[in-house]
Amino acid sequence: MKFAVLLAGSGVFDGSEIYETTLTLLNLDRADIAYQCMAPDIPQAHVINHMTGEEMPGESRNVLIEAARVARGEIIDLAEANPADYDALIVPGGFGVAKNLCDFAFKGDAMQINPSVKTFIQAVHQAGKPVGLICIAPTMAAQLFGEGTACTIGTNEDVAAAIGKMGGKHISCPVTDVVVDEAKKLITTPAYMEAGRIREAADGIEKLVAQLIDMARTA
Amino acid sequence: MKFAVLLAGSGVFDGSEIYETTLTLLNLDRADIAYQCMAPDIPQAHVINHMTGEEMPGESRNVLIEAARVARGEIIDLAEANPADYDALIVPGGFGVAKNLCDFAFKGDAMQINPSVKTFIQAVHQAGKPVGLICIAPTMAAQLFGEGTACTIGTNEDVAAAIGKMGGKHISCPVTDVVVDEAKKLITTPAYMEAGRIREAADGIEKLVAQLIDMARTA
Repeated sequence: MKFAVLLAGSGVFDGSEIYETTLTLLNLDRADIAYQCMAPDIPQAHVINHMTGEEMPGESRNVLIEAARVARGEIIDLAEANPADYDALIVPGGFGVAKNLCDFAFKGDAMQINPSVKTFIQAVHQAGKPVGLICIAPTMAAQLFGEGTACTIGTNEDVAAAIGKMGGKHISCPVTDVVVDEAKKLITTPAYMEAGRIREAADGIEKLVAQLIDMARTA
Repeated sequence: MKFAVLLAGSGVFDGSEIYETTLTLLNLDRADIAYQCMAPDIPQAHVINHMTGEEMPGESRNVLIEAARVARGEIIDLAEANPADYDALIVPGGFGVAKNLCDFAFKGDAMQINPSVKTFIQAVHQAGKPVGLICIAPTMAAQLFGEGTACTIGTNEDVAAAIGKMGGKHISCPVTDVVVDEAKKLITTPAYMEAGRIREAADGIEKLVAQLIDMARTA
């Protein structure tokens, strides 16, 4: 079995959340599941100085090239990825998901998903393979998988309300747990939407990966 | 107890190795040890495109600002850090250690350690507190802790020879294990000097962190 891991850069404020990505890969490797990291070859929405939280003026970076950092160079362009090659897909969180893969961070429930991202994830889903969305990534769930898709981003009421407006069914969930939509083959966990410390995110991600592997094996 | 974690940027080829850093922090947190990430406020030696391995022309980045990515913004300038505040110190690996914290990647055994880095690590050591060096970081061991310091970078003969020339005592070691110099209170593990997959690095780092905590408790 081989899983796709879709990235959005490298760094919590403008890319993929680094710990969530690392822990996803560790849990896959410990379960002997091969994985392939991938990201779209597009400019980042912006570049954030992670010390100050401010935008870095005049700075521009590429999502795929920066995502290569958290993949140790072992990454492919999403445009080259074939959904048929993978048994499941995981999207770790980080603001980059809500800035580069979709524009939820800027547009809220009027957001749009990057067409290449949407096409790839939907192709995996339509082939009956399970998808795991971590942290803020479940904001894409309803647009990806349709009305009534159950998911969690933890307990944030504003984000939960936005998910509801987009047609999703938000279920509150503690950081160390997951929400499973069996019919849609979707598993979500809050991770750093809720985590106060790395081990909390780690526990939720460990559950998500383990249950996603079980789902892929019976798919 | 509180540990210092000294970083060199964010990304294996020009900064701190991201998985090694993440797994260091996870193991500390799971053992209920607080930590503080820190890095020097200096320019990176260069910026590497992690897809191609090539230098990015015209690009410059700051070690502290980039290290803030792998610390989720919770980082301090090394110049502001007080060695007395910490019970132990860990330096994860990555080429950034050999490019930004010292210049081993460019000068080999004629390398010099950044003076602020050297002063800080030696102050921790001279206070009788243990130090953990991961991956390529043990190339600094002899210059930091003196002639005959025992350490490992795994099995790379060139790097082992350079350590020997600098006065260190290199001991070959598998990726999932550690080398301990009890007298110097130094623990080293090869991590991505040897690792073919993330779980191998994880196993060695888990041992390093556990044994460093034991050493700090009896210090």
